Amino acid sequence: MSKLVDLEDVTDPVCCAPLSGPVLGEDEAAELASVFKALADPVRLRLLNLIASVEGGEACVCDLTVPFELSAPTISHHLKVLRQAGLIEGERRGTWVYYRAVPERLTRLSGLFALPALTPS
Amino acid sequence: MSKLVDLEDVTDPVCCAPLSGPVLGEDEAAELASVFKALADPVRLRLLNLIASVEGGEACVCDLTVPFELSAPTISHHLKVLRQAGLIEGERRGTWVYYRAVPERLTRLSGLFALPALTPS
Repeated sequence: MSKLVDLEDVTDPVCCAPLSGPVLGEDEAAELASVFKALADPVRLRLLNLIASVEGGEACVCDLTVPFELSAPTISHHLKVLRQAGLIEGERRGTWVYYRAVPERLTRLSGLFALPALTPS
Repeated sequence: MSKLVDLEDVTDPVCCAPLSGPVLGEDEAAELASVFKALADPVRLRLLNLIASVEGGEACVCDLTVPFELSAPTISHHLKVLRQAGLIEGERRGTWVYYRAVPERLTRLSGLFALPALTPS
């Protein structure tokens, strides 16, 4: 359910204003803060990097535990946090779950930090 | 001192690779996680928004307490966290400290979430 809400937010033009733009409302600030909390962990950042950079755009959970010296349940926990933040989505097919990054969410974060007026062209 | 190191990192081409790009190293993941920890708070996000969007690019600390129902020391604490994360820098002139966003840092974060291959053109 929450994933659907996240995706709907993305279509709202107010959602994607940069930090250098209009005043950020309390609700949006709270929602963004929860996304950054999900990103505030080195293992989750590396997992997101692995998922977002995989050829074909989709990573099997079976390939995500290998680079980390962590148990499968720990990796699953981190993947759940990323999923709840709307950064990745997973689909079970047979034995494994396959994850992909949610491009709308990453693009929104990219736009949040865009500084058109200050960035040298 | 740490601010200088942050600015040097920005000039390193490895620093600015997107999450959809090369493998994120453990050290960079740890450093980025600490930046996202600084961003994982609604008040700090709103402060950064106020500072990044102010006309002239510089905000007097005297103007930053008004929109929040928080004490001056609490606001100062949040500003310190943003400063330590390299997101803003402050300069004391007379009675007040004036803050501005660090464009290299925000641009780096913007690039981190860029998805050139997935974003519709």
